[in-house]
Amino acid sequence: MKDIFGKYQQEFEAELKLFLEKETAQRDGMSKGSMQSLFEPVKYIMANGGKRIRPLLLMLSCETFGGNPKDAVNAAIAIEILHNFTLVHDDIMDNANTRRGKETIHKKWDINCAILVGDELIGLSYRSLLKSKTTRIREIIRTFTDGVIEVCEGQALDKEFEIKDNVSISDYYLMIRKKTAELLKTAATMGAIIGGADKNNIDAIREYAENIGFAFQIHDDLLDVIANETKFGKKIGGDIIEKKKTFLYLKALEVLDDEQKSELIKLFNSEIAPAEKIEKVVKVYTDNCILESAKKEIKKFTEKANTLIDKMNIKSSRESLSGFSDMLLNRNY
Amino acid sequence: MKDIFGKYQQEFEAELKLFLEKETAQRDGMSKGSMQSLFEPVKYIMANGGKRIRPLLLMLSCETFGGNPKDAVNAAIAIEILHNFTLVHDDIMDNANTRRGKETIHKKWDINCAILVGDELIGLSYRSLLKSKTTRIREIIRTFTDGVIEVCEGQALDKEFEIKDNVSISDYYLMIRKKTAELLKTAATMGAIIGGADKNNIDAIREYAENIGFAFQIHDDLLDVIANETKFGKKIGGDIIEKKKTFLYLKALEVLDDEQKSELIKLFNSEIAPAEKIEKVVKVYTDNCILESAKKEIKKFTEKANTLIDKMNIKSSRESLSGFSDMLLNRNY
Repeated sequence: MKDIFGKYQQEFEAELKLFLEKETAQRDGMSKGSMQSLFEPVKYIMANGGKRIRPLLLMLSCETFGGNPKDAVNAAIAIEILHNFTLVHDDIMDNANTRRGKETIHKKWDINCAILVGDELIGLSYRSLLKSKTTRIREIIRTFTDGVIEVCEGQALDKEFEIKDNVSISDYYLMIRKKTAELLKTAATMGAIIGGADKNNIDAIREYAENIGFAFQIHDDLLDVIANETKFGKKIGGDIIEKKKTFLYLKALEVLDDEQKSELIKLFNSEIAPAEKIEKVVKVYTDNCILESAKKEIKKFTEKANTLIDKMNIKSSRESLSGFSDMLLNRNY
Repeated sequence: MKDIFGKYQQEFEAELKLFLEKETAQRDGMSKGSMQSLFEPVKYIMANGGKRIRPLLLMLSCETFGGNPKDAVNAAIAIEILHNFTLVHDDIMDNANTRRGKETIHKKWDINCAILVGDELIGLSYRSLLKSKTTRIREIIRTFTDGVIEVCEGQALDKEFEIKDNVSISDYYLMIRKKTAELLKTAATMGAIIGGADKNNIDAIREYAENIGFAFQIHDDLLDVIANETKFGKKIGGDIIEKKKTFLYLKALEVLDDEQKSELIKLFNSEIAPAEKIEKVVKVYTDNCILESAKKEIKKFTEKANTLIDKMNIKSSRESLSGFSDMLLNRNY
């Protein structure tokens, strides 16, 4: 990732650091140590790395249509902060202990702290976004706000599906469109607007980002069972324990015969020891070529995304966008 | 309230209803009942009344400077939704069981639900705000975003104060400025901008709203011990049980002699039966004329607010703004 997108990443990290330093500085009239219950965890989560996929896509999209990626950096910071808000609140709801190999905020501090940190992150994301130099500010903020709402609705569906029996693969796609693809679309759209793209180009890159988003989420579902735990930063099999209706699980239900299907459902909802449950469920997946199905699906969406690049009127290098999709497809954490 | 501001209230409630109906409607491609885990509680909290103080102030501020209050209704909806977001998340953090006489969201549903509902409300608030017809959209959204951040920081201070021993009255004012006064300032400012006010007028109504906010919060602290529980909608003495550093408590510490002060601190931090604790703390307040001090302080801030009205270049009735402050001062719930 560093090779292709190093120039964006460097600019992004430097500006993000400056923004956060300013926002969490000691203020006049405030006693020393005030609001550290808020600012410490804000700095902790934002410094905790991550792949910075959304800001990279945003800056890349800006340059793709002839804009200067530096003009997109405030929006890039906004989308990354917003993404981190979703992580902080989702981790509470999913009762996750670790994130990127470190303790989640509600574990290291507490739930009240994590709620407030997430809220503050939303506010900070809009503050950064408002610094964007553009004449199309209303359009950008509308795109961003649609992203906020879609991602909340996606999370609602995700939680509903955990306790719902008859989730279809088409329900799944609706959910991941909202929960995962939407923020990538938001990033791509905002970058395109700042870069001066017209409607046709915006539509094409939105569809590109949606397909990338689908590939990305199915890849994430796959990594839950095959990733290197240290690099992935999350517990392997976490989705199984959380009874998440992932692509793997839903695909398995689709291909199994009635008897096997009942057995998988029973196993999935049983309360046996976590390690044993993960092992047994993964065995069902491997015995039925589910991992291969997932890989095919990821490839399909990535290829679809790449064909959309040809529809765009690109003013910089066409290879950057396809490089971006390949990078996401080939990551192993 | 209905007599003076009935015309705003009617317009506001009708538009709010329309907005929420649209946002929580069944969507294409979504299975029946989807996202009701999110939409039901959103409708529940927004329909649960409240005094609608912020939207009224916003529409009043707009008309005060010559604008049409109908042009301010989308911003008014935004500020009321934002206010409700703060209630939903604060009630989790404060472990409150009731709000406006009804169960809080995290009690009626659960904490995960309440977290997500609050998040969704923030998104919806921006969506409504973006519908504002104005050429000064960036200024309005910046004002609103400052409000979001200030209110989170105010909540952080409020929680920090619960476990901090040496909170001063000046710390208290800093906290309530952020937690309470800020959203009133935000409302007044946004209304003024939409109404076409210049900087001088905006500065004056901001200061007006800040003073109103101080009066309002001290009044709220007072109502915690003297209100009619049914009308107030919250448990009487809740602040005492939550160990909130209210004006009453901090004022008492200021006027008591060292021995009495130690006794109050000990009592406040003891784990005796709630009813007994409330009774004993309230007795300290009444024996030391603390309630009278609070009333004086409320009167002082309200009068200060009213003198600021004279500094404004008002294009409608001057009486409306003073009527607004009087209404807030005289409420008993």
